[in-house]
Amino acid sequence: MNFKIFTIGKIKEKYYKEAIKEYEKRLSSYCKIKLIECKNIDAVKKKLTDKTYIIQLNIDGDELSSEALADKIEDLGISGKSDISFVITHEEIQKNERLSISKMVMETGLYTTILYEQIYRSFRIINNQAYHK
Amino acid sequence: MNFKIFTIGKIKEKYYKEAIKEYEKRLSSYCKIKLIECKNIDAVKKKLTDKTYIIQLNIDGDELSSEALADKIEDLGISGKSDISFVITHEEIQKNERLSISKMVMETGLYTTILYEQIYRSFRIINNQAYHK
Repeated sequence: MNFKIFTIGKIKEKYYKEAIKEYEKRLSSYCKIKLIECKNIDAVKKKLTDKTYIIQLNIDGDELSSEALADKIEDLGISGKSDISFVITHEEIQKNERLSISKMVMETGLYTTILYEQIYRSFRIINNQAYHK
Repeated sequence: MNFKIFTIGKIKEKYYKEAIKEYEKRLSSYCKIKLIECKNIDAVKKKLTDKTYIIQLNIDGDELSSEALADKIEDLGISGKSDISFVITHEEIQKNERLSISKMVMETGLYTTILYEQIYRSFRIINNQAYHK
């Protein structure tokens, strides 16, 4: 599968950049994943193609457990939707669905780190592997 | 106010340790906060005194928005409960209440980082300050 994670604004904190890099490394056995930091929502929209399945992420989305996210990723893969774009934004965009990690507002770098950790966790769940590095 | 954050197990990831250190620094203008990493739940229990207000954190707790957490911290401070212990655990403990950050299971280091960020965010909200460093 092929994931793109879109954020609005650059992630500046060194610790979040390093956390994301670590999950990217762990995820390399399971999928392709790429962080795309855009200036604004218009720049995001320009990069979203018709082919990709769009999941918006913000506090108003549906909250899933880690297992439910794993099921969703597995189902998308099985049904041939292997190009997934997660877009972290409160702005209006066309999307296939809207999910939420938490009711709490967070720094984008932190929110993105959690998303990476949960995608990694999903692949460990899908493959019946214990969660560890 | 005086916060203690209890985890079971040590936080090993350098990036989470650095994120926590950064929030600790930012929080030093507002409160005392201390991370206490315990071997197991019994070690946590030994360190919890009668004086402290205990908030357990896990996926089964009540989910709050950032604003609701800020209100809670402000109310606790006003009512003289200025010694607060957050305990991140799924094990049974005596507590005053149980809260949740997310329905998703996360690494302890990540969960602890979010908690620090939310306590910092709470003090920015309580003091009508914009969220930034």
